[in-house]
Amino acid sequence: MQELAAGIVVIGNEILSGKTVDSNSAFLARELRQLGVTLKCIVVIPDELDVIADTVRAFHQQYDVVFTSGGVGPTHDDITIEGVARALGRRVVVHPMLEAKIREYLVGRTVNAAHMKMAEVPEGAELLVDDALRFPTVKVENIYVLPGIPEILQQKFLALKPRFAAAPYYLKLIYTNETESAIAVHLNATLVLYPELMLGSYPKIGDSEYRVKLTLESKDQDYVERAFTHLLALLPKDTLVKTEG
Amino acid sequence: MQELAAGIVVIGNEILSGKTVDSNSAFLARELRQLGVTLKCIVVIPDELDVIADTVRAFHQQYDVVFTSGGVGPTHDDITIEGVARALGRRVVVHPMLEAKIREYLVGRTVNAAHMKMAEVPEGAELLVDDALRFPTVKVENIYVLPGIPEILQQKFLALKPRFAAAPYYLKLIYTNETESAIAVHLNATLVLYPELMLGSYPKIGDSEYRVKLTLESKDQDYVERAFTHLLALLPKDTLVKTEG
Repeated sequence: MQELAAGIVVIGNEILSGKTVDSNSAFLARELRQLGVTLKCIVVIPDELDVIADTVRAFHQQYDVVFTSGGVGPTHDDITIEGVARALGRRVVVHPMLEAKIREYLVGRTVNAAHMKMAEVPEGAELLVDDALRFPTVKVENIYVLPGIPEILQQKFLALKPRFAAAPYYLKLIYTNETESAIAVHLNATLVLYPELMLGSYPKIGDSEYRVKLTLESKDQDYVERAFTHLLALLPKDTLVKTEG
Repeated sequence: MQELAAGIVVIGNEILSGKTVDSNSAFLARELRQLGVTLKCIVVIPDELDVIADTVRAFHQQYDVVFTSGGVGPTHDDITIEGVARALGRRVVVHPMLEAKIREYLVGRTVNAAHMKMAEVPEGAELLVDDALRFPTVKVENIYVLPGIPEILQQKFLALKPRFAAAPYYLKLIYTNETESAIAVHLNATLVLYPELMLGSYPKIGDSEYRVKLTLESKDQDYVERAFTHLLALLPKDTLVKTEG
């Protein structure tokens, strides 16, 4: 099964200026993990053409799959298409199928320059059509251009999902009432035997149930099971809260 | 008054793997905006030493102020201090004052290697002490090292706030029931006269009150007032919902 590394580029002054909380990257992070895709980086950048172009170009080169979020629409601050085109050294062109869809959607109304802006794509882009979507998703090279509005981004991503199936991650969880300092030695000992284990240690403040959540993860199910058994045997029994997975 | 550009580096596999939703960058974005500090970039990266070092070095060079979030603590996956040290070509050393604070905090208990890890700083780092904090905040060059736990990050940032006062932003808001496509021409016309205006246009789906929120912003209060008056006169009166600011 394929292995995929992904990056997310969130474009929007409204997030950097604290007016809007980005929920799209968290949604995509959860979805990608479930698919077995490894998300390597999320970046939030302003609506600035050169910054978009440079960031998208770097992500395009570094990761197998890139998602952009935001900056698509009819107004002056929607410059993601132009940024992606510049990242790839392509021109911006009107896509005939998008233009036809927009004219069909607006039938009987005057089509203005703002509407036509939404028919623009980087030259050579593919349109991914899906029955669940009013408008297709723009894809160019390994870049999927998604909108900032969470409802539409989610619809569009769900339609894309089958493309990204990768080998799954296996996750096991341990909750303990010990402190991180007390168990660090056991975590280290487990990593000596299981160096490829993805092992996370997350303290929680003010939780009545547990102090630290440990996450053990691997794409090798047997490996994570053995590491889990090993670590569990090392941890003090009387402070173990529960395990999951 | 000073102008400050800031960057935030969020360090944590738990966010990229969709297990935890990062709330720290949204908190800092809001706080920085209120202070008049311009946040230029947020990036979320994994617990990998080279990635942390490269990212922190780039941010250190590009922005006036850098905040890191996460990766400080006693366990194997807490490698932010080492990453920041490597970014700056510095060694990691035990800070005597931190060691003393930790020993004082643990009085009567055994101090282990995991505890001592929390006394480590990049060589030459400053410790910012504040009465509201149990442990001081590590600062090195223009980099402030903050923890991932939201409650503690917030405490630490609030103690730092007075350092970052900059010239404030002035914000005015217009809510309309027009579509973006219908008002794009008016936004463009306003930007011809007020090219320095920070003008955002944000459609909302399924809101019974309005279709588009417009944000007008500047550090020049008179400028934003004049742009606001100009744009308001261009917009259709019958679809105006309200203004704010």
